[in-house]
Amino acid sequence: MLTDIEIAQQAKLKPIREIAEGLGLSENDWEPYGHTKAKLSDQLVEKLAHKPNGKIILVTSINPTPAGEGKSTVTVGLGQALNNIGKKAVIALREPSLGPVMGIKGGAAGGGYSQVLPMEDINLHFTGDLHAITSANNALAAMIDNHIHRGNELNIDPRRIEWKRVMDMNDRALRQIVVGLGGPLRGVPREDGFNITVASEIMAILCLAKDLKDLKARISNIVIGYTYDEKPVTVKDLKVEGALVLLLKDAMKPNLVQTMENTPAIIHGGPFANIAHGCNSLMATKTAAKLGDYVVTESGFGADLGAEKFLDIKTRAGDFEPDAVVIVATVRALKMHGGVPKDNLTNENIDALKNGMKNLEKHVETIESFGLPFVIAINKFPTDTEAETETIKSWCESRNINVALTEVWANGGEGGIELAEKVIQQTESKERNFNRMYDLHDSIDVKIRKIAQKVYGADDIDISAKARKQISFYEQQGWDQFPICMAKTQYSLSDDPSLLGRPNGFTISIREIRPSVGAGFLVVLTGDVMTMPGLPKKPAALNMDVTEDGKAVGLF
Amino acid sequence: MLTDIEIAQQAKLKPIREIAEGLGLSENDWEPYGHTKAKLSDQLVEKLAHKPNGKIILVTSINPTPAGEGKSTVTVGLGQALNNIGKKAVIALREPSLGPVMGIKGGAAGGGYSQVLPMEDINLHFTGDLHAITSANNALAAMIDNHIHRGNELNIDPRRIEWKRVMDMNDRALRQIVVGLGGPLRGVPREDGFNITVASEIMAILCLAKDLKDLKARISNIVIGYTYDEKPVTVKDLKVEGALVLLLKDAMKPNLVQTMENTPAIIHGGPFANIAHGCNSLMATKTAAKLGDYVVTESGFGADLGAEKFLDIKTRAGDFEPDAVVIVATVRALKMHGGVPKDNLTNENIDALKNGMKNLEKHVETIESFGLPFVIAINKFPTDTEAETETIKSWCESRNINVALTEVWANGGEGGIELAEKVIQQTESKERNFNRMYDLHDSIDVKIRKIAQKVYGADDIDISAKARKQISFYEQQGWDQFPICMAKTQYSLSDDPSLLGRPNGFTISIREIRPSVGAGFLVVLTGDVMTMPGLPKKPAALNMDVTEDGKAVGLF
Repeated sequence: MLTDIEIAQQAKLKPIREIAEGLGLSENDWEPYGHTKAKLSDQLVEKLAHKPNGKIILVTSINPTPAGEGKSTVTVGLGQALNNIGKKAVIALREPSLGPVMGIKGGAAGGGYSQVLPMEDINLHFTGDLHAITSANNALAAMIDNHIHRGNELNIDPRRIEWKRVMDMNDRALRQIVVGLGGPLRGVPREDGFNITVASEIMAILCLAKDLKDLKARISNIVIGYTYDEKPVTVKDLKVEGALVLLLKDAMKPNLVQTMENTPAIIHGGPFANIAHGCNSLMATKTAAKLGDYVVTESGFGADLGAEKFLDIKTRAGDFEPDAVVIVATVRALKMHGGVPKDNLTNENIDALKNGMKNLEKHVETIESFGLPFVIAINKFPTDTEAETETIKSWCESRNINVALTEVWANGGEGGIELAEKVIQQTESKERNFNRMYDLHDSIDVKIRKIAQKVYGADDIDISAKARKQISFYEQQGWDQFPICMAKTQYSLSDDPSLLGRPNGFTISIREIRPSVGAGFLVVLTGDVMTMPGLPKKPAALNMDVTEDGKAVGLF
Repeated sequence: MLTDIEIAQQAKLKPIREIAEGLGLSENDWEPYGHTKAKLSDQLVEKLAHKPNGKIILVTSINPTPAGEGKSTVTVGLGQALNNIGKKAVIALREPSLGPVMGIKGGAAGGGYSQVLPMEDINLHFTGDLHAITSANNALAAMIDNHIHRGNELNIDPRRIEWKRVMDMNDRALRQIVVGLGGPLRGVPREDGFNITVASEIMAILCLAKDLKDLKARISNIVIGYTYDEKPVTVKDLKVEGALVLLLKDAMKPNLVQTMENTPAIIHGGPFANIAHGCNSLMATKTAAKLGDYVVTESGFGADLGAEKFLDIKTRAGDFEPDAVVIVATVRALKMHGGVPKDNLTNENIDALKNGMKNLEKHVETIESFGLPFVIAINKFPTDTEAETETIKSWCESRNINVALTEVWANGGEGGIELAEKVIQQTESKERNFNRMYDLHDSIDVKIRKIAQKVYGADDIDISAKARKQISFYEQQGWDQFPICMAKTQYSLSDDPSLLGRPNGFTISIREIRPSVGAGFLVVLTGDVMTMPGLPKKPAALNMDVTEDGKAVGLF
């Protein structure tokens, strides 16, 4: 069997000019980055304001397992399938982070015959957006330490600086460090640490900003820390918002590429799905909606985290609603949710499958409670038995739920035609009543409780003393009007990663709440959240190479 | 008077396609990065091997002063002037580093009507080369700490790791840090520090590598530190050379842009001029020589550092020799060398000028002792008096030295025609006998002494006990066959920055010697060298902004 990169390198890519012209774009609407990548103008949404928006299809999934669900693959495959049946579809995806690419095999560019290309570039430096975010984040950090070093006019308490430096790398040794050592010429000593770039608040901001003006306003509002008398200090106080926006002006432009089957794909932004909202940029989604009749986009992790944040955070920032949802599941992953260990997944096991489908059932209920029409996509693996797929189908039929088997990994768009047709039907469904999970005017603890009970199925929430104190401080600051961004394990509906399937009788423990005032949400931490990953014993980097004529080797 | 950015934004840029086609390049020889930047294939030198090389003109200067010499401006202006008189010229320059752009007004893109464009892009992220170098450098750092964390099979001594992380930022708080704090999940604690990206050995390597194969060989040879029993540990031992080259494969491709007057300019690589050799990439120079009949390129700082390293390090790595040298000076800077403080430079002062010209005289002698023909370029400022410029001219005439007044800042190529004509004459001069300053087989201390005495005019060198010990260790390792890369103050011919003009009776103190085994040179430190700059009290970033339609403001 061919690997993803081998399949990718066989693809016949069209010049990006043809893809751009196929979208009706003129010379000034885009800039080439090489022959197969482009940056689109950040002013297309405004320029095309008169055009109706395409239908927005959100792809989400059950809680992820090590068995793999293939959410990105289905997203790409569905886009290709829509084009296959004569619809004008545009895919909107996140940009992968370089750190994990170097660490563990796996990316965010789809797989098999449903990939976005050129996958080597997309998985490495792409058009430099993550590098620009790294630069802006670290310019701010340097300005903060320089301000303190140069007399600290703003009275910033070095022990209360919340702004961390970032690196787009898995580098555990930078998690906890001490900076400014070595005497008066080397700054003011303090405890510090690095996050991975995608965890930067600037990434979240870039993905929620409507335009450069909004970007600047949000960046101005970032709270970088507190004074000795515990007043928030913002980027605006430091007067560097202009420089940061200057560093980000090209990163704000959505990137255009294509799939294996030449379907246009906009890949832009990639915030963490735990301490941030985990979706591609609003700019990308809105631009795609102006260029396509259908936009296929995804959210991070399972529906409990990714779809909830897409619907409660991103659609609020952009004032829009999706037209249909796709919930991706695999037989293998459902069997894991039903208790089968990873090594036994190739054996048929109908009981475990039925048991694991309770996880799917919960996510179905969640999407129903958001009032959105949906289709379940079963992403087929070669080892799935007919009895297994039939079990899922009849479960769906008995509940009047739309379901489609997809084989987009092996067959590209061809493998997703049934899904595409059912999704189109759903986008035209009159049975919709989109409503978000909570009201912005709810108090912070009411918002958290609504998510925990309605989306996770928790009995209750348990807020720590530290978090209580934070809530009352944030209420004083007026930050209680923000939406909530839950940071919870992606593996379980609960906050315990070992509870697969559909746990019940559990409580969600709220450890800490961090304000992302620039991004405009409160991050609610239910446990330790790793914002700087580490490398495994044998990093994927050990297999990577380049041929003498510049071809990538060993990348996936 | 208009600022550089205002002049730049008035320029009529040609589409980069026209520039590329003007150089005879076909579709596969280059890739667009936006409409006015391109990356050239890294295989052009090989592809055009049958073509004769253009003449290479090296631009250097007197020891820099705060008064400014305008070496980059003259380099760009001379390229434009050559095109003006019907010659096919290509300029080869270094890429600016983002850190200093955010810190202090000033860049490496020329000035006035002799600038390379688009200056906003060139001074910010450009085509991402520095970001790729940062990533490769830091991937290696993460692999080192991960190796130790995961059992340390190679027996690396954490106290003897020489490889530092880098950031393209002026961030003094990172100069000296402690990493790996916080317990066993957060790596192994050790002292560490960040350099600015341009100080990375990977930058030096990228600038000296002939092709991807050479790049990989040099990266494999990097010594990252030592084992507990003091054996060198290389990148090859860690098996990550393939991944690092993969991260650098696009950064190896030279960047094509144009000047204000549409003269082609290749801007590629920018290593430090103290702990590295301070020239644009060999790839850029060699590619330019295949595309133009004349290549105008520059080296860092004054001739004592930049030209010496260009001639002793870069021309050895690339096995070529320049056809002529231009030595840039200004009346203002020469007066500073003659003892006038910065605030009094607008007053005519012939005595100080004559006194300061001893600095110029030493650099003239140096270029003569390299056996190369040269022209002195007096880069004219509005405040220079005729008596002053006449003083320099008659000094030159009495010594039979070619000299030309240039007004390229104010008048672009038009202002450099006399210089261009004299330079062409010199490239055709038969009086040349290029010989380098030392032989590679000389011992380390003999090489250092030859540079100190012949280039700086020192009486002697004084090698510290530490450096002596290092020399004997490097001799055991076989590293004594490398050329020498001196790290000395750029402000003086001596190692004391306060000694302007032409000091004599001094000794050069050698504090320490560091091996750059991958780059292939020994860095000889004559004092404290700053490899991570800091920000000033009012960083240039405070004035930067972007208009709502994306135009850069306050950048220079």
